[in-house]
Amino acid sequence: MSLIIPTYQDIRETHTRIRGLIHRTPVLSSSGINTIAGSTLYFKCENFQKTGAFKYRGATNAVSLLTEPEASKGVATHSSGNHAAALACASQIRNIPCYIAMPRTAPKNKISAVRSYGGIITFCNPTLRDREETLERILSITDASFVHPYDNFNVICGQATAAKELLEDHPDTEALFVPVGGGGILSGSAVSAKSLNDKIKVYGCEPANADDAYRSLKKGRIIPSVNPVTIADGLLTSLSELTFEIIRNHVEEILTVSEHDIVTAMKIIWERMKIIIEPSAAVAFAAVLNNPRLVHGIKAGVILTGGNTDLLNLPFAQT
Amino acid sequence: MSLIIPTYQDIRETHTRIRGLIHRTPVLSSSGINTIAGSTLYFKCENFQKTGAFKYRGATNAVSLLTEPEASKGVATHSSGNHAAALACASQIRNIPCYIAMPRTAPKNKISAVRSYGGIITFCNPTLRDREETLERILSITDASFVHPYDNFNVICGQATAAKELLEDHPDTEALFVPVGGGGILSGSAVSAKSLNDKIKVYGCEPANADDAYRSLKKGRIIPSVNPVTIADGLLTSLSELTFEIIRNHVEEILTVSEHDIVTAMKIIWERMKIIIEPSAAVAFAAVLNNPRLVHGIKAGVILTGGNTDLLNLPFAQT
Repeated sequence: MSLIIPTYQDIRETHTRIRGLIHRTPVLSSSGINTIAGSTLYFKCENFQKTGAFKYRGATNAVSLLTEPEASKGVATHSSGNHAAALACASQIRNIPCYIAMPRTAPKNKISAVRSYGGIITFCNPTLRDREETLERILSITDASFVHPYDNFNVICGQATAAKELLEDHPDTEALFVPVGGGGILSGSAVSAKSLNDKIKVYGCEPANADDAYRSLKKGRIIPSVNPVTIADGLLTSLSELTFEIIRNHVEEILTVSEHDIVTAMKIIWERMKIIIEPSAAVAFAAVLNNPRLVHGIKAGVILTGGNTDLLNLPFAQT
Repeated sequence: MSLIIPTYQDIRETHTRIRGLIHRTPVLSSSGINTIAGSTLYFKCENFQKTGAFKYRGATNAVSLLTEPEASKGVATHSSGNHAAALACASQIRNIPCYIAMPRTAPKNKISAVRSYGGIITFCNPTLRDREETLERILSITDASFVHPYDNFNVICGQATAAKELLEDHPDTEALFVPVGGGGILSGSAVSAKSLNDKIKVYGCEPANADDAYRSLKKGRIIPSVNPVTIADGLLTSLSELTFEIIRNHVEEILTVSEHDIVTAMKIIWERMKIIIEPSAAVAFAAVLNNPRLVHGIKAGVILTGGNTDLLNLPFAQT
């Protein structure tokens, strides 16, 4: 099977297509955090993106590219998190149906987010197999287009626009730190960064408790995580063939961080920057703090991937 | 006694003086919140100001205006909150001593904030009388300059620059909602707003549990709060002669809100805007939500006064 890898030209065309549909999110800095990190950090605030996460970029790109006959049948996916809300919101704006196979154990706030955007939820058991079978049934009944959360060319092109914007705003960026779950935002960011300036170092940042990307890059083949448990609930998924292929070619290294590192990094961002990020979004900053040798004295971009967290169940008391 | 009221010329000169010392904080909007409020709201994000609150504007203005002989002796104040941290930080930057009389019951995070800026703390009992007596002793020993948190011309001129920036960024603003405790930010905002456009309506927003401004405006004379208890811990103080005089002349009305209103408003801002504000900062937005008749269909500014809140003790579970 030959994989079709997004080029920078694809990403540029994507950005032109979705620019009016997304927020160009701000890039924030904090002198206090720069002092802590010993470097100049540019935080790309995708927690301020529509639906509260970068996922909206990929979802709205995929929805935009549907033909009218395809669109009329709607889109579908299986997800318990930000991709589901993003796809539902993008579909609502195009006024097409969006079907979501969602584990019945999904957090209430995620369920209500999807419903608030008009998503049509089918509950299933919280296993990958049941999610996939439920999705298959939905697809066979509706003939909707499946929009995979990351193993999808158009989704990766959309996610890639976040790093493109960051590097347009700060062309002096020397390194880029990006969380990795299934690899959509990391692979997209890597293509954007290396295309704009092949000297930029790109690091994938992963919870040690869900370190399939780390292990897959070491072994040179995909080794999925099996039932990973981490507070970074957006990073439970494993690389696909497509994201693995891009990451092995364009990413320097995968940096892993502990659960404690994630909560500490999240708390520093909340306290110093006064912005709300979810645990998954703290993983890249945690990797920066863990690896001073990689950032000392340089200018580094950090992608804050999202801000959807349950305010009634914050992890700070546990630190 | 004749009071010297700041003019817009004073505020303009202040802004020129402190512009390089403060952050020009962003003005954010949220389409979701606009839908909830039935109006277009411009949120001035002083939670992103240095030291996490608008108080830095007034403090740094007062510190800037000290002569060299005055500066060498330092500054002093009594405060358990954001003014103390702001004055300590502004003093640290000018490299002068800053003495704070602080109740021994002050929250640990406030104490450590003041210390992190090099503030010299003298602990006292948590009564106004003991705070004032402790301050008197500090002043008699050090000959430092007392910088009152709000009953101070230069402090009011500094606080006034926040509304000035908001109205420069959004000259179409038709109404302005500002929290009121001692009245520094409200009186400064009112002078800025009415000078730029005398049609702008200015509303003071106050916890019903600490409603001295509401009662004082009704009666036409200052009626201080006695031991008020509210989650909005930045708004416990009462108007001074100076702030009362400005507010009675330039503010349309004081709007009061319940403790429940404050927490609800705070939660909406956290969830929708993904930014951290403290309870006191939610009071103006709570008043907007309580008074749809005042904002329906118009463009209104809301000052988010600060973002210093104890992340280990959030109020959301109580709603």
